[in-house]
Amino acid sequence: MVAASIITIGDELLIGQVIDTNSAWMATKLNEIGVWVKRRVAVGDNREDIIKTLDEESRNADIILITGGLGPTADDITKPLLAEYFGGKLVINEQALENVKAIFARLNRPMIERNFKQAEVPENCQVIQNKRGTAPGMWFEKNGKVYVSMPGVPHEMKGMMEDDVLARLPLIFKMQSIISRTLLTAGIGEAFLAEHIKDFENDLPSFIKLAYLPNYGMVRLRLTATGSNKSSVESDLDHHFRLLKKLVSEFLVTDDDLTMPVVTGRLLKQLHKTVATAESCTGGYIAHLLTSEAGASAYYSGSVVSYSNQVKQEVLHVSNDILTAHGAVSEQTVVAMAKGALQVLKTDYAIAVSGIMGPDGGTPEKPVGLVWIAVANNQLVESRKFNFRFDRRRNIELTASNALNLLRLFIIKQEQVAALAN
Amino acid sequence: MVAASIITIGDELLIGQVIDTNSAWMATKLNEIGVWVKRRVAVGDNREDIIKTLDEESRNADIILITGGLGPTADDITKPLLAEYFGGKLVINEQALENVKAIFARLNRPMIERNFKQAEVPENCQVIQNKRGTAPGMWFEKNGKVYVSMPGVPHEMKGMMEDDVLARLPLIFKMQSIISRTLLTAGIGEAFLAEHIKDFENDLPSFIKLAYLPNYGMVRLRLTATGSNKSSVESDLDHHFRLLKKLVSEFLVTDDDLTMPVVTGRLLKQLHKTVATAESCTGGYIAHLLTSEAGASAYYSGSVVSYSNQVKQEVLHVSNDILTAHGAVSEQTVVAMAKGALQVLKTDYAIAVSGIMGPDGGTPEKPVGLVWIAVANNQLVESRKFNFRFDRRRNIELTASNALNLLRLFIIKQEQVAALAN
Repeated sequence: MVAASIITIGDELLIGQVIDTNSAWMATKLNEIGVWVKRRVAVGDNREDIIKTLDEESRNADIILITGGLGPTADDITKPLLAEYFGGKLVINEQALENVKAIFARLNRPMIERNFKQAEVPENCQVIQNKRGTAPGMWFEKNGKVYVSMPGVPHEMKGMMEDDVLARLPLIFKMQSIISRTLLTAGIGEAFLAEHIKDFENDLPSFIKLAYLPNYGMVRLRLTATGSNKSSVESDLDHHFRLLKKLVSEFLVTDDDLTMPVVTGRLLKQLHKTVATAESCTGGYIAHLLTSEAGASAYYSGSVVSYSNQVKQEVLHVSNDILTAHGAVSEQTVVAMAKGALQVLKTDYAIAVSGIMGPDGGTPEKPVGLVWIAVANNQLVESRKFNFRFDRRRNIELTASNALNLLRLFIIKQEQVAALAN
Repeated sequence: MVAASIITIGDELLIGQVIDTNSAWMATKLNEIGVWVKRRVAVGDNREDIIKTLDEESRNADIILITGGLGPTADDITKPLLAEYFGGKLVINEQALENVKAIFARLNRPMIERNFKQAEVPENCQVIQNKRGTAPGMWFEKNGKVYVSMPGVPHEMKGMMEDDVLARLPLIFKMQSIISRTLLTAGIGEAFLAEHIKDFENDLPSFIKLAYLPNYGMVRLRLTATGSNKSSVESDLDHHFRLLKKLVSEFLVTDDDLTMPVVTGRLLKQLHKTVATAESCTGGYIAHLLTSEAGASAYYSGSVVSYSNQVKQEVLHVSNDILTAHGAVSEQTVVAMAKGALQVLKTDYAIAVSGIMGPDGGTPEKPVGLVWIAVANNQLVESRKFNFRFDRRRNIELTASNALNLLRLFIIKQEQVAALAN
């Protein structure tokens, strides 16, 4: 199988100031064209470490993709090193220079020496022009291996991969097919799920692998098949995926590689229904998730983030009596918030949440992690209590994904009721 | 200098389904105790690859931290492999078993065979008990090197690091001091900033390194100093950090390692002022950023996410005339939204945003990336137009960080005006 290593260069990755999101994206795209990512290595801006890593990964992989270390500032040492490593010197690339000049002209900014240097490349590379920034990419070939160096800025790297690298690699290497199918479950733990599908897993042929990907109280299951004959790999995979779907049908959210907000948004869109959120403890995060996908305006019209009791009362019309008698984190309050959201924002469905996300603000009766969630339409309100026990960030994320799942189940039930009534 | 390698194990990291956030956190914490992270390597659930990586990183580093591969499901091969690598067999650890049992009792769930296996550890390790989950951590020592294996679940790994590993490592290795100072700038590009502080950078002593960390149109600058005498390292670093702050004073947002939402939130809190947001295109993301920090209720009371024109009119009282004459993405609309937010949510300050985040919805007059932002208090409204040119996600993030920066500058100016008037 054609194997790749991804090398990321930059001290910022080793001092923890930047989270590497590039590698995951690159791995997904490489898998799609049949390249298996065998290793990912991050090294600092250190000459000796970079050379050693290039040597090592040349032994590990056929394709070595390098990101980072190409910015205009002085802490970058990668380009001269690559020129030397592949035995050449740095020269100005005219097309890259035109590109830098055009970008500066468009921004109406003067160019300085450093900016001109962005157009320098090792003479022994094929240049990959950068349509989204100033640093060109570089393609090297040596001893049957391919090395591609790209900027670390995510959208610049992604542009080069999509415009050039992903199309050019299959011209050089004969690829196997790597195909995956993913489904999302909710409401069952990882170990129980594993027990539930133990026999299925044991019976899988060796060219199909099962992975468990737990996240925010939900578990994704992924089947990955590898082989040289694409259509036969695909049909075997689909057969086993159908078996798996049947086994987990009770917990199945989607048989596609989609997130909970996307599944919920698509369900609403397909039914021509709208949703609003009335958020206290999640502070707008559910609204953000619902609007992260393009086209959200088809099913989403707005939200009220009612962090204070005043906003709960004045904008969502939660009565002072309810807040005084039961408190902001209570079943009565989220029910009133959901009803208020339906009325004020005029949608078919509403989600309301109120809770204590921590680290402070808990009491013995209402500890950190206590959350009330309500989902409603004009006929019915359903509410449910949760007790999360993590840090603030994770509590917010768990509240949001559980609220969306409650809404999803509520919609399905309500639409079935509506269909029966007609 | 004491060097560490971080190894992450799991196919999910190589097929791109999971983004590795653990390594960045670990690197930050290791730096704080004087350990330099030399390399980070991700490998799949493959016996041969894991063993080879352990061998390699043993040569690269003194401390090898391993995460992942310890879950209860069958795709995990790490624990038996570690037992073998360090020359022993798996045995049940009684304390870990008690922990697993206690967790299942609390969740009111029956235990199955797989769950019992979670309490197995190699007999030749020191067990690190897991207070947040079922999989115990393992500490090995061999040929003067330390190896620690921890679960990949972020809060479980973080708990073990903070409760145990970070305190124990300095008892074994004599650490150098690694100290950093970070500041955040806004309103100047990376290359110009580099030109602006070129002489400063050239004059830095060899034990102090400068890093540029650009993010969402802002650049963080980080000075990192290393040495054996902590107080002299610190005083030299502080001297150079003061020089740097003076050089970039015009663009300085904060001289601490803080994000824009945190800086803005703290400014509001310190002045006892409150803010509301009226968000169209950011869909609640600014509200989410403002409420991500604990204690946000001191300065944040609520938001209206007005994705549809109907919500802009009915909840924020933007007039139909304005929307008809100028459209939802216009200076007039964001100004009216900001005024509406002040009135409806009764805060001292308001942010309003409206724009086209893409990929669809652009027109020749109003292309994708066009954003209007307004900031206001009861005396004044300021508005500004932006043209971003990235993907949806990045456009949302850029809009949010620029809106918060505009608010920050507006508050500083308004408070100065108010102080002069008194």
